Amino acid sequence: MTNIPNITSPTAFADVPARTATEITQAIAAGKLTASAAVAEVLRVVAQVEPSVHAWIHLAADNALAHARALDQANDEHGVLNGVPLGFKDNIDTFDMPTAYGSSIYTGKTPSRDAASVALMRIAGGIALGKTVSTEFAHRHPGATANPWNPAHTPGGSSSGSAAAVGAGMVPIALGTQTTGSVIRPAAYCGVLGYKPTYADINVAGVLPNTPSFDTVGVMARCVDDLLLARRALLDSSIESLPAPQANQLRIGICRTPFWDAASADMQALVMDAATALEHAGAKVFDFDEAGAFVDLESANLAVSGYEFARTLAHERLHAYDQLSPILRDGRMADGLRDKYADYVSAQRTLAQARMRLDSAFANVDFILTPAAPGAAPAGLDFTGSATFNMPWTSLHTPAVTLPVRRDSAGLPLGLQIAGARYADAQLLSAARTVMATMRS
Amino acid sequence: MTNIPNITSPTAFADVPARTATEITQAIAAGKLTASAAVAEVLRVVAQVEPSVHAWIHLAADNALAHARALDQANDEHGVLNGVPLGFKDNIDTFDMPTAYGSSIYTGKTPSRDAASVALMRIAGGIALGKTVSTEFAHRHPGATANPWNPAHTPGGSSSGSAAAVGAGMVPIALGTQTTGSVIRPAAYCGVLGYKPTYADINVAGVLPNTPSFDTVGVMARCVDDLLLARRALLDSSIESLPAPQANQLRIGICRTPFWDAASADMQALVMDAATALEHAGAKVFDFDEAGAFVDLESANLAVSGYEFARTLAHERLHAYDQLSPILRDGRMADGLRDKYADYVSAQRTLAQARMRLDSAFANVDFILTPAAPGAAPAGLDFTGSATFNMPWTSLHTPAVTLPVRRDSAGLPLGLQIAGARYADAQLLSAARTVMATMRS
Repeated sequence: MTNIPNITSPTAFADVPARTATEITQAIAAGKLTASAAVAEVLRVVAQVEPSVHAWIHLAADNALAHARALDQANDEHGVLNGVPLGFKDNIDTFDMPTAYGSSIYTGKTPSRDAASVALMRIAGGIALGKTVSTEFAHRHPGATANPWNPAHTPGGSSSGSAAAVGAGMVPIALGTQTTGSVIRPAAYCGVLGYKPTYADINVAGVLPNTPSFDTVGVMARCVDDLLLARRALLDSSIESLPAPQANQLRIGICRTPFWDAASADMQALVMDAATALEHAGAKVFDFDEAGAFVDLESANLAVSGYEFARTLAHERLHAYDQLSPILRDGRMADGLRDKYADYVSAQRTLAQARMRLDSAFANVDFILTPAAPGAAPAGLDFTGSATFNMPWTSLHTPAVTLPVRRDSAGLPLGLQIAGARYADAQLLSAARTVMATMRS
Repeated sequence: MTNIPNITSPTAFADVPARTATEITQAIAAGKLTASAAVAEVLRVVAQVEPSVHAWIHLAADNALAHARALDQANDEHGVLNGVPLGFKDNIDTFDMPTAYGSSIYTGKTPSRDAASVALMRIAGGIALGKTVSTEFAHRHPGATANPWNPAHTPGGSSSGSAAAVGAGMVPIALGTQTTGSVIRPAAYCGVLGYKPTYADINVAGVLPNTPSFDTVGVMARCVDDLLLARRALLDSSIESLPAPQANQLRIGICRTPFWDAASADMQALVMDAATALEHAGAKVFDFDEAGAFVDLESANLAVSGYEFARTLAHERLHAYDQLSPILRDGRMADGLRDKYADYVSAQRTLAQARMRLDSAFANVDFILTPAAPGAAPAGLDFTGSATFNMPWTSLHTPAVTLPVRRDSAGLPLGLQIAGARYADAQLLSAARTVMATMRS
């Protein structure tokens, strides 16, 4: 196993330049690059690796080039994503590209308006390169995407294409969505950073819901700076980047969660090695006391996600039941139709209380270290992997980031996950810098 | 001023039979009515009153009749809304009817799928009669709808058409949405029951967001039984109707809110008379102690709604700014674009804490009495009225019901509002029966 010295290096697949969004915007600002050239550059990567990766369900190369030329000719003040090619998961509406929600039911359908997140990134000068593959309705039935580090392995899901596109260097930033583990897990499997914000932080308008009480728009990128650029575009262009804290200022919890035994030896070693490295760098590291926030959490998560998902897809249940996959029909939808409203309400009460408990647990902890997934990407494309290590943070609405800091013995990325208190996203992202630097030193 | 003896009587406008949904389903079950006849019946009311009320932006009479005939010919088990004609607010997606969000930008656009709430009501045997007028993007710029009790007065908004359609007897049940006061206020103005559930209770998939952290689907009807039918269709068909509690079992708070001075003398008298009547019937009635839940509430509400709304409509800001009304552009959108992310997060923290405070405040109170609106519907169609008395319950995610129990001296309805603890919707609706019976005795 080797730590990854620089995740922005060419990947196993793409022995081509793959600039970060930060590098693109800086080069354009310095007059050393045009938006058109930035788009042409990523299209060359796409031509090389997409035939093996299948990250895109729709590629809008001509439109992207046209937008880039318009940006190059405009005299407007540059937005924070000026000239940056972007990928959007196929469950995020776009007015100029089809949005099929990962289902054959909606192949070729184009919504009448952009999702809020898409429009906000366009306002900031971002260029939509295309729509990335989603599992069916952001549940489990996979699309065609392969892992860019080894195409015999899953890229994870449900944001399969966004993770693979960023991991293969086809685009520096892509949006995904997470209802259980659908941003953090595929990002970890594909060797990129994945960021799931505090619930409700990035506007969900125009995203097809899965479980409205958990659905969160997230960001894939190859460096912390690019996650911050996305936040500035999506939230508020005046957001400042906090400096990376010194390790000796940090109070870090090791959070094994109730599922620690499900983590591979490689993954357990990664978490403990990170703890050791941060402690050696001066951080206070201790076992995280979650203050009871995990009591009944898994059953509450299942009750809420099943109940809401089965109702979210009521239209398809009525009109297109035969076009739904067996795993969707017989899995979460069937579970949800068995759920009683009283159990749903009871689960919602449990979660509301658990969120307050976790707030208090984070009062004396800057962030926790925990696995991003049970291990590296499993072999095969049918199973997108387990979301066990993501479920707590999504259910409890806290921000989480996965950091691609190591490869396993087979050369596949392992993701370290850090999570922090609700609404403390800025602090968590600044701490991510310290963790990355510590693991690479 | 007179109390209203039976709100299901013919309204000022519609001197025609106007069955409730409960009456329709019972008559069909008894073989005394067909779904086709039920639809034909409401279409006769529509023909009579719609030219003055303008509740519908799209009427699907032929489709509704065809669906009714199909139901009449089917041998399926009857759903809980079997044969009930329904209205859906124009910001709720329908796959077979245009959905324009109250904006000329989307005139004639038809979404590719039904909202969850629409599909769930169709699964339950409900018949979509059409789409009801919404203000522009569920904000303030009004549509053409008039108040069915006096067409020179506003029906309220943003669910203008749903409230007016139910109030005029054109449909027994209609769905609306509430982000501040958009279900309770128009229901009160139009003399019908309005029910805003606990946040997230009715699935929001397929509803155009306004402020995702507050948006709630709500129900308009003319009796409590019909609200329960809608809940069974939308939540769980096994939900039982709780019996009306005896007044002497109830602990009732009078909640003047910080805005009591904004209520008209008529409205203040209605709330205090209701308190007196319930006390005479044996209830414990006292001033509600909201345990600090209202501290900084109005500013937190404005910060969250402005911030989210301005981002929800980023697509229109980018592509159709000139087609937005001045009140939208210069009001909530401009406010929201001035909001800083840090202030938004601070407001979200305030609200999370206020919700816990209100939970504890309701520990010893079954429900509170409060105005549904400052008074009866204002004259004129330009201003849809103030949501001051609705904002607390929407921001704090609690259920609220308005009950049409009185008319003012001009003959316009006054709504009494009751609200209860989060997730205690069933208890609140059963208490609504007791309040209605007490006020009519």
